Amino acid sequence: MSLGVCYYPEHWPEEKWESDAERMKALGLSFARIGEFSWALLEPEPGRYEFGWLDKAVGTLHAAGLEVMLGTPTATPPKWLVDAHDDMLAWDEEGRPRGFGSRRHYCFSSETYRRHSRRITEVLARRYGQHPAVTMWQTDNEFGCHDTVRSYSPMARLAFRDWLREKYTDIDALNEAWGNRFWSMLYHSFDEIELPHLTVTEPNPSHTLDFYRFSSDQVIDFHKEQAEIIRLHAPHATITHNVMGHYYHYDHHELGRHVDVLTWDSYPLGFLAWSRSSDEHKQRYLRQGDPDFAGYHHDLYRGCSAFGVIEQQPGPVNWAPYNPCPLPGMVRLWTVEAFAHGAHFSAPFRWRQVPFAQEQNHAGLLRPDDQPAQGYGEIEEAAGVLAKLGPEEEAARVAILFSYDSFWMAEIQPQGNAYHTEDIVSDWYAAARSLGLDVDIVHPSVELSRYDVVLIPSLLPLTEEVAWRLEESGAALIAGARSGSKNENGNIIPGLAPGPLKRLLPLTVTRSETIPPGPGGKAGAGHWHIWRDEVECDAEPALTDEAGRAVLYRFGEHRYFAALPDRALLREELRALCAARGIETADLPEGLRLRSGRGHRFAFNYGPEPVELPAGLGPSDGEFLTGGRTLPPAGIAAWRLP
Amino acid sequence: MSLGVCYYPEHWPEEKWESDAERMKALGLSFARIGEFSWALLEPEPGRYEFGWLDKAVGTLHAAGLEVMLGTPTATPPKWLVDAHDDMLAWDEEGRPRGFGSRRHYCFSSETYRRHSRRITEVLARRYGQHPAVTMWQTDNEFGCHDTVRSYSPMARLAFRDWLREKYTDIDALNEAWGNRFWSMLYHSFDEIELPHLTVTEPNPSHTLDFYRFSSDQVIDFHKEQAEIIRLHAPHATITHNVMGHYYHYDHHELGRHVDVLTWDSYPLGFLAWSRSSDEHKQRYLRQGDPDFAGYHHDLYRGCSAFGVIEQQPGPVNWAPYNPCPLPGMVRLWTVEAFAHGAHFSAPFRWRQVPFAQEQNHAGLLRPDDQPAQGYGEIEEAAGVLAKLGPEEEAARVAILFSYDSFWMAEIQPQGNAYHTEDIVSDWYAAARSLGLDVDIVHPSVELSRYDVVLIPSLLPLTEEVAWRLEESGAALIAGARSGSKNENGNIIPGLAPGPLKRLLPLTVTRSETIPPGPGGKAGAGHWHIWRDEVECDAEPALTDEAGRAVLYRFGEHRYFAALPDRALLREELRALCAARGIETADLPEGLRLRSGRGHRFAFNYGPEPVELPAGLGPSDGEFLTGGRTLPPAGIAAWRLP
Amino acid sequence: MSLGVCYYPEHWPEEKWESDAERMKALGLSFARIGEFSWALLEPEPGRYEFGWLDKAVGTLHAAGLEVMLGTPTATPPKWLVDAHDDMLAWDEEGRPRGFGSRRHYCFSSETYRRHSRRITEVLARRYGQHPAVTMWQTDNEFGCHDTVRSYSPMARLAFRDWLREKYTDIDALNEAWGNRFWSMLYHSFDEIELPHLTVTEPNPSHTLDFYRFSSDQVIDFHKEQAEIIRLHAPHATITHNVMGHYYHYDHHELGRHVDVLTWDSYPLGFLAWSRSSDEHKQRYLRQGDPDFAGYHHDLYRGCSAFGVIEQQPGPVNWAPYNPCPLPGMVRLWTVEAFAHGAHFSAPFRWRQVPFAQEQNHAGLLRPDDQPAQGYGEIEEAAGVLAKLGPEEEAARVAILFSYDSFWMAEIQPQGNAYHTEDIVSDWYAAARSLGLDVDIVHPSVELSRYDVVLIPSLLPLTEEVAWRLEESGAALIAGARSGSKNENGNIIPGLAPGPLKRLLPLTVTRSETIPPGPGGKAGAGHWHIWRDEVECDAEPALTDEAGRAVLYRFGEHRYFAALPDRALLREELRALCAARGIETADLPEGLRLRSGRGHRFAFNYGPEPVELPAGLGPSDGEFLTGGRTLPPAGIAAWRLP
Repeated sequence: MSLGVCYYPEHWPEEKWESDAERMKALGLSFARIGEFSWALLEPEPGRYEFGWLDKAVGTLHAAGLEVMLGTPTATPPKWLVDAHDDMLAWDEEGRPRGFGSRRHYCFSSETYRRHSRRITEVLARRYGQHPAVTMWQTDNEFGCHDTVRSYSPMARLAFRDWLREKYTDIDALNEAWGNRFWSMLYHSFDEIELPHLTVTEPNPSHTLDFYRFSSDQVIDFHKEQAEIIRLHAPHATITHNVMGHYYHYDHHELGRHVDVLTWDSYPLGFLAWSRSSDEHKQRYLRQGDPDFAGYHHDLYRGCSAFGVIEQQPGPVNWAPYNPCPLPGMVRLWTVEAFAHGAHFSAPFRWRQVPFAQEQNHAGLLRPDDQPAQGYGEIEEAAGVLAKLGPEEEAARVAILFSYDSFWMAEIQPQGNAYHTEDIVSDWYAAARSLGLDVDIVHPSVELSRYDVVLIPSLLPLTEEVAWRLEESGAALIAGARSGSKNENGNIIPGLAPGPLKRLLPLTVTRSETIPPGPGGKAGAGHWHIWRDEVECDAEPALTDEAGRAVLYRFGEHRYFAALPDRALLREELRALCAARGIETADLPEGLRLRSGRGHRFAFNYGPEPVELPAGLGPSDGEFLTGGRTLPPAGIAAWRLP
Repeated sequence: MSLGVCYYPEHWPEEKWESDAERMKALGLSFARIGEFSWALLEPEPGRYEFGWLDKAVGTLHAAGLEVMLGTPTATPPKWLVDAHDDMLAWDEEGRPRGFGSRRHYCFSSETYRRHSRRITEVLARRYGQHPAVTMWQTDNEFGCHDTVRSYSPMARLAFRDWLREKYTDIDALNEAWGNRFWSMLYHSFDEIELPHLTVTEPNPSHTLDFYRFSSDQVIDFHKEQAEIIRLHAPHATITHNVMGHYYHYDHHELGRHVDVLTWDSYPLGFLAWSRSSDEHKQRYLRQGDPDFAGYHHDLYRGCSAFGVIEQQPGPVNWAPYNPCPLPGMVRLWTVEAFAHGAHFSAPFRWRQVPFAQEQNHAGLLRPDDQPAQGYGEIEEAAGVLAKLGPEEEAARVAILFSYDSFWMAEIQPQGNAYHTEDIVSDWYAAARSLGLDVDIVHPSVELSRYDVVLIPSLLPLTEEVAWRLEESGAALIAGARSGSKNENGNIIPGLAPGPLKRLLPLTVTRSETIPPGPGGKAGAGHWHIWRDEVECDAEPALTDEAGRAVLYRFGEHRYFAALPDRALLREELRALCAARGIETADLPEGLRLRSGRGHRFAFNYGPEPVELPAGLGPSDGEFLTGGRTLPPAGIAAWRLP
Repeated sequence: MSLGVCYYPEHWPEEKWESDAERMKALGLSFARIGEFSWALLEPEPGRYEFGWLDKAVGTLHAAGLEVMLGTPTATPPKWLVDAHDDMLAWDEEGRPRGFGSRRHYCFSSETYRRHSRRITEVLARRYGQHPAVTMWQTDNEFGCHDTVRSYSPMARLAFRDWLREKYTDIDALNEAWGNRFWSMLYHSFDEIELPHLTVTEPNPSHTLDFYRFSSDQVIDFHKEQAEIIRLHAPHATITHNVMGHYYHYDHHELGRHVDVLTWDSYPLGFLAWSRSSDEHKQRYLRQGDPDFAGYHHDLYRGCSAFGVIEQQPGPVNWAPYNPCPLPGMVRLWTVEAFAHGAHFSAPFRWRQVPFAQEQNHAGLLRPDDQPAQGYGEIEEAAGVLAKLGPEEEAARVAILFSYDSFWMAEIQPQGNAYHTEDIVSDWYAAARSLGLDVDIVHPSVELSRYDVVLIPSLLPLTEEVAWRLEESGAALIAGARSGSKNENGNIIPGLAPGPLKRLLPLTVTRSETIPPGPGGKAGAGHWHIWRDEVECDAEPALTDEAGRAVLYRFGEHRYFAALPDRALLREELRALCAARGIETADLPEGLRLRSGRGHRFAFNYGPEPVELPAGLGPSDGEFLTGGRTLPPAGIAAWRLP
């Protein structure tokens, strides 16, 4: 459990480095992430390396007692490399190369670029792999940022054909899997297959699904190539990659298998501005972020691997449609919350605001004039709070099942503009969190027996094996519409939905409808919205809407929401199920969130007004580790569990 | 008057074909449309044909007593053909080829593709032209679907130049017609002329108008080539093409001259979602469709040719922004309504929901698991109702004049973002229909003497000959702003609007204005909106708005709306005119529609609540052929006229 | 102070020219602008010139006693020139050539086109330079119209590299100025530099800023080449170029240095439709235009050069999203208002509405059938009013500082979607104008000592020299957030904002935030919105919002709005400052505007209802030169100042 910071010594005069390092140490930081955008400085000309500055930077940090996380610089190849190899560029969906001038100007499928990626990684790993300061390595930076996973380049086309050949061996198998007799889309050879873009109307969804999987695999392969080289030269180092929030174009569960720690970049304010939340919600949480944004991602990525936060928003940023200042206290809150969710470390991005180039309006812990900014003091405070705590262990009894493959299927065929997997999954997550529950977000392949309640908001393909393990687990199940509706090619499952889940949910979905945004009908404590199934079933529905449409079926402890519930409707069903299982729930005021490990419990106030801890919460002996019963805006409280 | 179904035997195991055919027959269907997307199966390799499966499919249907409508498969050329001829692709307005991977990947102007279109048509016509089951032929599928009429390919450019050379002979004639001395757009040769796209600002409107006409002509020519080949080998067959709703990129009146029956594809729910209706209207008719959507298209296409519905929405579809389930009864209602409007046949799309590829979420009469879906039973009910009726003859006394050429002129120069010809024409149509009137939508060239009232919502070019025939017809005229404002090149008519109509409407439009969406002023029972003319006229206006602006002029029985009326304003004027002509009108409750032939009268309830037939309507003897005085949601009633 | 008209003899039969000229003269006009789109008629084939028609047109106008403003026809090169030189086309930001078929189809950086531009200018200048009628010359037409300043062509790329080489000499200087060590964007050679488009995410803002400056310089150079040729052959002629409203892609201050008179094209209704105003505001001023639109542009362009209006909207136009008719009287109002703001001349566009091509729905003074339209009579009335007045001299005591360079910096890095420099500057302008103040909008380099109050709504780069002159001027200063925040490369200024202004405003901006559209907090008589700074300062804020955030600081007579004020908030602060300086202000009713020269005072009613002049305004002797105390909609009043 340690604090660090993202640092770019190459942006500053060398004279500043030593005092920078000392100030970091004094602030309670234990490491600095450096180097990930510096290729042009490390290799100014082809094959001529300049390590002097980096040697000195690493040495200076080391001398101050800091560890170093070193990034491979492959997110920003230099202009001379691009000019030498125009086959290294990705192409956009419109069919144009995506050129030099910012970052991430490369195609994961370019063999040429892969070669140079391995080369620069090897060079760095050889030089710094045994350096005592360099205990951590980050590959590249934010795979997929600026929509860079899916490339439509000629290189990607060739690689996709190879990937398909590998997967299907026989072109007839592909034709069968994709249903290519539809619209005369049959192929005779893998070499006839194009990338699924610039077609007259939408391409075959199975075609697109395989392209999305291929694109994800290319990212993982790219990372693995670097990770293997690093491992060779730095066998004991921690290897990581920094993933993003709200990003689903490659399989983070798969990436999690090839890192020691999965780090992520947490920008609660910018992402609220980008979200589909109501204007009212965005106004209320303008300077705090959505109360469930950070928690959702912590819990999602903790389901992929050990995790940490490597870029924590320290103040206003530069890239959202509008960029407010965080409320005083929010940087402290975000930092402590990350540890409460099990983060191994947290590091604000960046040490000092840089006065030039694209990110000049992105805050740092220091202002451009070297004075402390908001984050500086708040990180210090957070360090103080964290010093009182040991590592948290996880004990969630509620799980949400999630897979990237299912996400892609619904992305390709949403069947209604309002159907967004992330919105649905995070809404179910928020319903549980608003009851004070701890939640794991996990891949369906994990061991399920530790859970009392399993939620399936949107899992379109779902194997017999998962259904069997669900049954074996003894967990109560709440499944949403579309669950188990698809086979592995994204096609409608024989026997119809919920497919393998019929084992627990004895019904058949005969057809489905989608409706415009807004409530579709009233049921229970809330409404259904977005999607509704029609169902054949021996049982009567447990809830119907005012027009008599079935909304919920109950089978013992298992639930099927034939119509997608809103937060209020789901919450009441979940509350009742938790009560039956002896899981304590709370009526949290709007904006308050709880998080428990085995040893402590935390409360975080995201709301813009003070709130009281509800009765029944808080330390039995009245002793708070930090905070108290009243939490001001951005306030936190923590106490020992009995 | 017969029912059929769209069927894709190639999607299903041969073992199912026989039972499929028998179930169709048992359901009361008399034909199946097949084959229109099967090129890759019919000709898997260049010149190697596989007819075995189609022989068997046709034979199986025939054996069950069904007729077959066979489609030419030119909407889906196989990949090998595309790879051999990249000059067969259409190009989009952005200047990019529109590639393989879905459907309609061809350019109407590609001579190469034309040759292959004729070849595959010839091959099929030779083989099945004399088959006793194959009584009907469909060319291609939905010309123009996915915006495919207007192609910006090099082939289209060459063909456009030829078309212009043919039309104008002399380049100076073109320069004069287009007004090319404006902005130095003069040409010296037809070979200098580009397609009207990727210009710095909008191209010359006459240039674009000719390109739209050319593009329409290319479609008609493409169809004619196939139709002539079919006619040669199947001289007695019914030839058709299936057109779409809400689609105006080629001249359907012209296409109507080259088919025996014009069929159309009716999807009331998806098209409501796509429309510019208010959210409130879309909510009310979410599961029924707009009450005038189907009727408008029936009456429009009946004005082109004998007509039928060849794709009737049978349940939820897959392609709209949201896809609700039809209210129970709507499939029956849509089917009976088509016949009430004079359809020769109706066929749901499709027999069985296919579990793979792009349309897997599009309902069929059967579910993917072979069980009956909504449409199955409702088609059976519709067959029962229709059995009691003979063919309807038309007796509308009210006509709306409409031309595609005028549509294009207004599309190119709307002069205001709110001016949409279709919205205006269908609004006028709805005003008449909400009075219980039957309406013909016809080209200005038809015989007009059968009509008592002629409506001209938006007919920009209007010849002296039409004006003369209008006068001769003795019909009362209601003309909207812009009528007669343009010459044949889309230019302002000398002497100004209403041009030739001054014969009936003695006034001059001195200038016009457009305003943002919303009411422009109150007048009579409603408001004007969108467009307003200023007029010089000896007469005083019959209606002005609250600011004193002229809205309506009356000249005997003729009316000129100098400002476009909304539905309420137009309805009252129309009601009075009908009363003067002895045409009965009714005050229909919202959502109720009537339709009469010479023998029967029908009522259809599109509203979501039950309605009563207004007093004065219904059988004089109280005997309904179906239904009764109270119509539930989706309810229908029919009775004999005295 | 003269009236003219835009005239296109080439659109009309020669028989009409003489009567046209005589009617112009009779109407009180003194000149006609002609020729600027006629290249294809002047040079129908390469090198073959046809001057006969132009000789005759000029002669006919001359004979009627009219002067001629002759336009170079370079905005519309003929098709044969484009076909001969495809390197003359501009390319759009998407990377595509922008082709022939409308106008402005050329790239300012094409050496080929520059050569032909000089050639045709030389040919015209030689022939008409000494013609007694041709007293004025216009270069080209509306530089930048249809977004044509910034071209992404190969020619532009080469020219940009040369421009950079010229500016920086050394590539390392460029790397340093742009901060290219960020994201490894370092260059080794000017020949490596691309145009800032089609990058993966946004390019370096300094890169873009230099590209915008380069693009502006190309326009100025293009103009200068023509102007120098004209000057050579017509040394006494008035040289002008017609600029647009709401257009900022090149530096109009710089262009102003190379013309005798800067003319602009004033279309108040179309520009209101295009603006970001509220729907309610657009509805209220639908047929009048925004009350400050014309005044703002008059005052902005008067700050560039002597100025005039060369295209005055005479009725409805054709190019806006909706195109209403001006209220009766508005053409007169706009015309008189231009002179009240110091215009040297005004000319409606166009003489007669042309019935063909792109602009056929654009009104003229005459209708297509030669009858007078609205503008005809109103221009006559305006001429009558103007005859009573002499030339106005300017005496504004309030100035707004504005620079195009600052505009570009904020355009490139707005930091929030709601930050639009023009909206902010014109809102501050409107606040002052609604107090009845006369305002100059000037470049920071002008002499400031004549002003009592200087407003800086948004001036990001601001040199020490300007700050020093501000101090020396003795003017009271009101500066808005962001003032002085950037250096000449668009980077954050060392020492932080307000940079050099700290001399007058002793504070430091520590960071800033942007928020969504709408009020950010209440303060004084209004609200802050869009942008807020946080400030370190010894002084207490003079105004805070309800959350305690600092909004305004006062330092003696100087003011710093740390949060951008809305109109109401700014107005009260400005009113108080004016009172302290003895500048009279008025409480104008909504829609009323005043304008004073040294001799007269004018009032203009833009509102749709009549208004009374507030007490204290009006002639001391009760004698109005025109109008009276009550101004009807579109009404004007004028009286002598004592």
